[in-house]
Order: sequence, then structure tokens, then C-alpha cells
Amino acid sequence: MTSQELFENIKKKGSFLCVGLDTDINKIPRFLLETTDPLFAFNKEIIDATHKYTVAYKPNLAFYESMGVSGWNSLEKTVNYIRYNYPDIFIIADAKRGDIGNTSNMYAKAFFDTMDFDSVTVAPYMGEDSVKPFMTYVDKWVILLALTSNKGAADFQYVTENNEKLFEKVIRKSKQWGTEDNLMYVVGATKSEKLKEIRDIIPDHFLLVPGVGAQGGSLKEVAQNGLNKKCGLLVNSSRGIIYASAENDFAEKAGLAAREIQQEMNKLLVDKGLV
Amino acid sequence: MTSQELFENIKKKGSFLCVGLDTDINKIPRFLLETTDPLFAFNKEIIDATHKYTVAYKPNLAFYESMGVSGWNSLEKTVNYIRYNYPDIFIIADAKRGDIGNTSNMYAKAFFDTMDFDSVTVAPYMGEDSVKPFMTYVDKWVILLALTSNKGAADFQYVTENNEKLFEKVIRKSKQWGTEDNLMYVVGATKSEKLKEIRDIIPDHFLLVPGVGAQGGSLKEVAQNGLNKKCGLLVNSSRGIIYASAENDFAEKAGLAAREIQQEMNKLLVDKGLV
Repeated sequence: MTSQELFENIKKKGSFLCVGLDTDINKIPRFLLETTDPLFAFNKEIIDATHKYTVAYKPNLAFYESMGVSGWNSLEKTVNYIRYNYPDIFIIADAKRGDIGNTSNMYAKAFFDTMDFDSVTVAPYMGEDSVKPFMTYVDKWVILLALTSNKGAADFQYVTENNEKLFEKVIRKSKQWGTEDNLMYVVGATKSEKLKEIRDIIPDHFLLVPGVGAQGGSLKEVAQNGLNKKCGLLVNSSRGIIYASAENDFAEKAGLAAREIQQEMNKLLVDKGLV
Repeated sequence: MTSQELFENIKKKGSFLCVGLDTDINKIPRFLLETTDPLFAFNKEIIDATHKYTVAYKPNLAFYESMGVSGWNSLEKTVNYIRYNYPDIFIIADAKRGDIGNTSNMYAKAFFDTMDFDSVTVAPYMGEDSVKPFMTYVDKWVILLALTSNKGAADFQYVTENNEKLFEKVIRKSKQWGTEDNLMYVVGATKSEKLKEIRDIIPDHFLLVPGVGAQGGSLKEVAQNGLNKKCGLLVNSSRGIIYASAENDFAEKAGLAAREIQQEMNKLLVDKGLV
């Protein structure tokens, strides 16, 4: 998918929402445990209930890996289900991968070839040759960690050399490795005051913004500081949507929670003159 | 496994070798493709042929993930096979994981609970709360990226603040998060001149050293700069051992390649007065 196609979907749906599929066997409704594949059964219902309001899904790999082979199987079925039923939705492998070149090649194969994800989150610590292999696939994306939403972000991401913080250096250097059509950045919503500074470095790239909702970030602030002329934002919500209810009505409640965010997003897009 | 137990195994075998299981379906002998599980069939033969000469195995997750569900299945069988047949061998999930706390918890569950790895490699970019969840398991280890062996290591790992490079800061800060019994560091053999400086910061921790062999690092230099009173090194070799031959004799040749390194290591341990 190109950035223009992603923007078209955003305009069509009046939404720049990404629904995080952090599907936890201990948090899904109990009655689903009687199905043959509870993680997939849960995801399928959530996807059917939320697809109208979202432009992206983001399975968090850790939750599937924690279940071993069966979890990996649920993940593959989830990706295939989205791709087959809602082909215009952007799918993110939230995997935080990154290794020496020949190993990153293998991760790229896993996510873009064996599975049909559109993008994968990548950690920048190992530098250029750990990131570029993901960019050799046409219409596939790297989503590089820049400034994360967690407390530990302060440990290393602000290390400063010549008045440039590490996360700024990561952005400045890596933007030469790709284009606005195959590279976006993770910027936590809990750091929304930093979004403006980051927009000065990369006015045109898409940003994936986690941390709205359960982690405390504000959607309005994120939009004020991060929206650009092609929207340029995917804002993720996981727990606030998928665990809106733990009862029989979990899918319906997830749909309502997604719609509520979509409506707020639509207003922000209208205010900005984008839809 | 404690660091003392690891050291006892090193002394017993006269080896601080780690065999990297970067098992690539396109590089294993053709006749194995007729078996029901080629990756596992290959690993089993390699393990049986090399276990006398090695104290650790390091499956590289990317190679298994690239095969999807079947690869994940081969991985689980490989870990179980090592654990059951050679229980004193240290098993490393070379996975380069790391995410916000509740997600790192799930990765820890995947590697230490669902599977029975002893350790997992972790990328430090997201800081303390992305690393610590892996240390809550008794006798399990984090192996944190410090200075990697690849070209891209130069992009960010040398960013310098107050005369302290990022990889040094990663080591100084993170050593407070764990102990010598649950935290080791990745230091590439291609940076062996830096090993001495790193030993000044962490004289007693174990280091996992990749990059000997195919990547060009020298075992002798690594030993000179890195050995400590409990050995303190695990030196990895992947391709040089497991792809020593692509014919019927692949396992035998892998065993010979591993034995050759073990003999060199034994001599280095004797010279240092450790065995």
C-alpha cells in the first residue's frame, strides 16, 4: 500500500484509527475458551465489529508467541482473515524486530512473504543494515521506533550528542534509508509535545502513535501536533477497544468504542480540512 | 542456570562455544527436504554431532519464523530435544525482543514458560521496563545488546554524551537492573578491541560474542580481551559449523568444525589457568 492509498482509506472512513490486537487468552470472554481457536475466534468477532471504523489492525506478536505454535497459527489466520475480507485495511506486525542483515532478511520474509503483513515495527539500535532488508519488498513498510510511549524511553532515547537527541538522530539518519511510501515512525502519544518537533524533521512521513487511552495520551493533542496534509497519523488503541467488555457483548462494545474514537477523529479531520 | 553452573560446564567440556542454529531451508542438505520436518531433522543431527564440544545452542528466531507455523513447530521441537537429551546445555533464544512492560512480559512467557529457553537476547532501545520483565524468572537470563558485530552498529551505538558512548551507557545503566546471574551482554567479536574497555565496566558478567568466523572476528583476540576468572565468554559460531558441508556428511563435518574450535578454546582456557 502506498501512503496515498492509505490516505484515501483514511478519508473514506473518516478515521486514522489503528486497532491493536493484543489478544490475551486471560482477558478474552470465558465462553470463547470452548472454541477450537479462542484467539482467532476473538479476533474475528472484533474485526467484524470494528472494520468500518479503522484503517489499520496491529497484532502484537508477543501475545501470539506466548501461546507457542497454536498462537502463531491464530496469528496467521487473523492476518489472512483481514486480508481476505477487508483488503483495504493496513496490517501492522508489531514485532519490534531488527538484527544483522541476513537475519533481518529472514524476518522480512516471515512477515511479508510467509505472512501478508503490510508493515513491521523495527527497533533501530543495530542501524542501517538491520532496517533496510525490510524495505526491499514493494509496497511494504518499516515502522521504526523513534520515541516510545513507555517510562523506559527516558533511559536511552534522549541521549544527546551535539544538541541532537538519540531519537532525533534515529529519525534524521533513517529517513535517508527509505521514502514516505515505505517508512513510518513510532512516536508515543504520551510524548505529544515532542510531536511538533518531530514534524519539523519529517513533515510528510506517517507516524504510528501508541499510548492513547490506557497509557494516558490525548487524541486531541496528538492531532494538533501531528496531523499533516495527508493526515500522516495512525493512532493506535488496543485495550480500550478490544476489552471494552468481557461479556457476550464484547464485539458490540468494541465496535461502539471504535466508533466513538472514529467520530472524534472524523471531527479532527474535518477541522483540519482533510475530509 | 547460574553463572557458576555455566562455568562448571565450560570447565568440564573445555569449551565456551555456542553453536548458532541459523537453520535455513535453502542451505540444509537436499535429502532432508524429504523428511516431515526438515529444520528439526537438520538440527537434531547437528546437535547430536556437536553437543560434546559446545556449552550453548542459539536458535536464531528469524529463520524459524520465516517458515511460519511449521518453523515455530520445528523450533519448539529443537528446544525440547536439547533440554531432554543434553540438559546441561544453555539455550539462547536469539530473538532481539523488547517492548513496553506488559508486552515484554508476554515475550518472557513465550520463551521461558511456553518454551524452555534459558535466555533471550533483548534490544535496549526502550529502556528499563522493556528489559526487566525477562528477569523475573528464576535462573533465566537476559542477554542485552551492547555493541553489535554489524556495520550498522556505528549508526547509533557510538552516540556520545559526556564522553560516554551509547553502548557504554546501556551497559552502565542496565547492570543495575540485574545481576551476574541473570544478565549478560552481546559484544561483537568484530569489535574485540572494545572488549577490554567493556571488561573495565563489567569485569564479572558473561558476554555473548557473535561474529567469529563468517563475520571475520578472531577467537584469540576475543579471549585475550574478554576472558575473566569464570571464563565470562560464550563465543558463537553459526554458519562455519552448521554448514561445514552440504552433503550426507553434514553432521560429521559440523562435529569436526565444532571440535576444532573447542580444542582452540581449551588451549585458551588452559593458558589462562581456568582448566
